[in-house]
Amino acid sequence: MPVSNERLYMDYNASAPLGSLARQAMVAAMDLDANPSSVHDDGRKARAVVEKARSQIGKLFDSQAKQVVFTSGATEAANFALTPDWTMGRALVRFSKLYVASSAHPCLLSGGRFTGDDIVQVPVTGDGMVDLPALERTVGDHDTDSGLPLVAMPAACNETGVLQPLREIAALVRAHRGTLVVDAVQMAGRMAIGLSEPVGDYFIVSAHKLGGPRGIGALIALSDIMMPLPLVRGGGQEKGHRAGTENTVGIAGFGAAVEAALADLARDRWAAIATMRDRFETGLRALCPSVTIYGEHVPRLPNTSFFSLPGIKAETAQIALDLDGIAVSAGSACSSGKVGPSHVLEAMGVEKVDGALRVSLVPGAGPADIDRILASLERLLKRSLSAHAA
Amino acid sequence: MPVSNERLYMDYNASAPLGSLARQAMVAAMDLDANPSSVHDDGRKARAVVEKARSQIGKLFDSQAKQVVFTSGATEAANFALTPDWTMGRALVRFSKLYVASSAHPCLLSGGRFTGDDIVQVPVTGDGMVDLPALERTVGDHDTDSGLPLVAMPAACNETGVLQPLREIAALVRAHRGTLVVDAVQMAGRMAIGLSEPVGDYFIVSAHKLGGPRGIGALIALSDIMMPLPLVRGGGQEKGHRAGTENTVGIAGFGAAVEAALADLARDRWAAIATMRDRFETGLRALCPSVTIYGEHVPRLPNTSFFSLPGIKAETAQIALDLDGIAVSAGSACSSGKVGPSHVLEAMGVEKVDGALRVSLVPGAGPADIDRILASLERLLKRSLSAHAA
Repeated sequence: MPVSNERLYMDYNASAPLGSLARQAMVAAMDLDANPSSVHDDGRKARAVVEKARSQIGKLFDSQAKQVVFTSGATEAANFALTPDWTMGRALVRFSKLYVASSAHPCLLSGGRFTGDDIVQVPVTGDGMVDLPALERTVGDHDTDSGLPLVAMPAACNETGVLQPLREIAALVRAHRGTLVVDAVQMAGRMAIGLSEPVGDYFIVSAHKLGGPRGIGALIALSDIMMPLPLVRGGGQEKGHRAGTENTVGIAGFGAAVEAALADLARDRWAAIATMRDRFETGLRALCPSVTIYGEHVPRLPNTSFFSLPGIKAETAQIALDLDGIAVSAGSACSSGKVGPSHVLEAMGVEKVDGALRVSLVPGAGPADIDRILASLERLLKRSLSAHAA
Repeated sequence: MPVSNERLYMDYNASAPLGSLARQAMVAAMDLDANPSSVHDDGRKARAVVEKARSQIGKLFDSQAKQVVFTSGATEAANFALTPDWTMGRALVRFSKLYVASSAHPCLLSGGRFTGDDIVQVPVTGDGMVDLPALERTVGDHDTDSGLPLVAMPAACNETGVLQPLREIAALVRAHRGTLVVDAVQMAGRMAIGLSEPVGDYFIVSAHKLGGPRGIGALIALSDIMMPLPLVRGGGQEKGHRAGTENTVGIAGFGAAVEAALADLARDRWAAIATMRDRFETGLRALCPSVTIYGEHVPRLPNTSFFSLPGIKAETAQIALDLDGIAVSAGSACSSGKVGPSHVLEAMGVEKVDGALRVSLVPGAGPADIDRILASLERLLKRSLSAHAA
């Protein structure tokens, strides 16, 4: 098979290509001259764009979003939400410990404004699911004398795509008077966040993981009774929850991207992606029967496949695919171009692997794309085999 | 004179219209699919755009910028810089008090991560200049046993446009072993930041005050020996100083806007603006000899005029101008559409005025624009006069 020169982007979980509706909304917002906080007509036009987007984003949570606080992304939203100090009206509420899944994104694991011993990791099983009995024990042992328990959980893992049982987690957290912050970055806009039963209290969302621009996100509260103390202070924007002139272009793109994502969800576009992911994994196992596919037997995001090929370093494979024009990642991409060991695999107790590759498909990926990456991996496996034979 | 239907934007200090080069750079950056931290070819292309902009922004500080840390804007940069806890290599450095000009922007005055009594306001004179003897006394009395003094000063006031004597302030701060954080938001790209002598150690800059997009800014360090502890944590971006996927579209626009602003400065475009501002103030005084123009006799930004018309509420005037299609502000625009009393005027000891209007001209404003706002103000003054006479 001839190698195509066209780039094939299969790193959606690191950053989604900008959707066309988001792009249009951003270009339109570039014509807004004014500060949304200015009271003149130009300012009110900018304000209207911000508020329209806020309402679009609220739709991710049906009619249950009480507050959508824009931030510069999910990482800031996590730093905002994960703090011991919250307010309820004029009263202060204190959380004395943060309980966070060991497979969570570093922006949760670092604990925001919690420090040191007040950040408690909750283990995950070999499949990458939160260990519910361990969570029950840990939060059950929480001493409420010094404050309440705050729990932070990913809805879906950025590396494995494994989905957490949010209903069970939420019920357990509520039973222990805790508050649940859900990192919905990899789930929002890709799967319905079933809200018929409680699945969390506060949700972190990022635009660039659902077809919007980088540099904009939100913390979404399903209750506005209690809010974290602001992280960024010195201005009354976002009802006092987050100071700083609003990123109008980014916000407009975020709103439009959510609307497009929800329309895609409504017409079941992600079901087609699951079919492509399954085609990929079936083909991969045929090429390499001893492949390990992480989280294979538990619910996962429909676009994500995270796997190790025995005897092949993930970094080497990532570079080989890149040279073939295919962008995938070896682990996550969250820090300065460095490829380190995956803390997610460590959390899952995986040992003795040379890293893992993540293929995260973009909506619209087709059979030809799958066949192309399989052909590239086949060449790589053959080269590796002949090198070992030599 | 017939009232033009076209909007006339004279609120540059609240937010600058997006420049054409910035817009082009942003649209081009929308084609970047990948996360700048991804190691594949697509990621490296996004990285290159970020690093090009970083280098463009560094040029605001000649060759002296050692670090340019991107933030979501000036407010975040202020919250990042204004903290008691800094690092010097692996050592911790402690600042025990923050000294901040009473006329500074709320994002400095709120003190970032300093709290309560550790935030000390330094008075300004009736002209809006920092009271240097008071600064000398205050910082001179600082007790270094518990930590060093951190000083935060605006280069130019967003409301009055008054420029602070940064050289004198910097010399004084250095003499007392302090560190000087300069809010350069209203100065950067409009006036040369004379760096032949020390004028500060860390500088806060915002893209949307110099022709770039809203939602992106930077903290610029002229020394990289010492840095504030990160505000936004949980990822290795920005050399560990600020976590979160980079706002590539915003950053690209920021870089291009700085390049355009420096080119404008080089061809002395702002001198023409000063001529227009002077034309406005001469006309204003002819219409209303009892007008008070704040900071009239001290160095100011070339585009800014902040004034009170006796007997006319600033809010009323702002609305009347808005109805005539002219956008100006009554005070600053930094919080949620509310017009409150100006803390800058309070700091200057101004009493018994019904607020003040700020005209902040956009580069390219011409005589016809000045005549149009003067005509609008003339109608307002006549209506007010006849209302009082009736």
